[in-house]
Amino acid sequence: MKTIKIPDAAIARLALYSRPLRALLESGVSVISSEKLAQFCGVNPAQVRKDLAYFGEFGVRGVGYDVGDLLREIKKILATDKEWILCIVGIGNLGHAIVENENFRKMGYRFAAAFDKDPKKAGEELPCGLVIEPVSKLRELIRALHIQIGVITTPPDAAQRVADLLMDAGINGILNFSPTQVKTPKGYVIENVDFTVRFENLAYHISKVP
Amino acid sequence: MKTIKIPDAAIARLALYSRPLRALLESGVSVISSEKLAQFCGVNPAQVRKDLAYFGEFGVRGVGYDVGDLLREIKKILATDKEWILCIVGIGNLGHAIVENENFRKMGYRFAAAFDKDPKKAGEELPCGLVIEPVSKLRELIRALHIQIGVITTPPDAAQRVADLLMDAGINGILNFSPTQVKTPKGYVIENVDFTVRFENLAYHISKVP
Repeated sequence: MKTIKIPDAAIARLALYSRPLRALLESGVSVISSEKLAQFCGVNPAQVRKDLAYFGEFGVRGVGYDVGDLLREIKKILATDKEWILCIVGIGNLGHAIVENENFRKMGYRFAAAFDKDPKKAGEELPCGLVIEPVSKLRELIRALHIQIGVITTPPDAAQRVADLLMDAGINGILNFSPTQVKTPKGYVIENVDFTVRFENLAYHISKVP
Repeated sequence: MKTIKIPDAAIARLALYSRPLRALLESGVSVISSEKLAQFCGVNPAQVRKDLAYFGEFGVRGVGYDVGDLLREIKKILATDKEWILCIVGIGNLGHAIVENENFRKMGYRFAAAFDKDPKKAGEELPCGLVIEPVSKLRELIRALHIQIGVITTPPDAAQRVADLLMDAGINGILNFSPTQVKTPKGYVIENVDFTVRFENLAYHISKVP
């Protein structure tokens, strides 16, 4: 495999391409054209071919891609061919929604611990089987359970503090769903997910519809 | 204002810039440099200046931007200077998290109706005050309440059907949180928000940390 730097947008699209590939594989479909894959994902076929070209020669001209091979290769590139162990901090509505989401589980993301700062919530068992732990046990459990990724679903004013706690406990990857930008030093990876931003994109585009 | 086509990524960043601007305005800060704004948003200052240059001359060289003016202009560009009326379909954990999210309300997105296909949920009052309506009333309520945007938080297998119902009822903008790509004909605007994709970005980047 070549070691060209793949743009972030291409990485995001690889994840997107893996969705229909997974569904096709489960349905027993073994070959797909770039046109069809592009159509499933709402992008153009040239984009699909360009993105896949970043990591080598794929598919047979005029025939298409082998669904299983392509999915396996995408998962290898994305490092999702192995299980990731996660914890989540902040068990409100959004925390519940994320920790209970079957898609995360299907995709190999395993929540090993759930934390909340509300002492009244500690000990409560979630439908997924996890028991809510107090934030005071964060460091200890992250180490004991070999947790690699921290998910933040706290109110915005707590997000940076929680991120600092997570990093201090040895986590180097954070997914922040709290509507504030969390900052991390070099060597840590943060994805700030703010869905209100998506509303604004939508509003902008709707206002441009004639 | 010029009518240059603004790239989608710049639109997403404008939404991002508006976050600290809002906070600064509330705190009584009236001027901000592009360096400081960039720092708050985790982008570089040249990017901020380039994005803002799309819509005219802003700021005073060596001084900075007027916080209130800049926020007002960004909101005008994004069409978020007016209230948007939304409905949501699918009141599970994620539906709850979104409809109850105070940030959406603060930003002028008003949920006027909440629908669920489960007849047992119909009539249930949500903490935000909305009463869950059966999907059979979708068309009638969208028209009566002048709803402009539909938010989908159903399981993936229902998402396309719900999108079709929403469009049929006169909605032309959809935000889909269900982990499947929903397709819309030309003239309709869809934002597919799949947070599992963000996990994959994160996994990719963590696996690249030395």
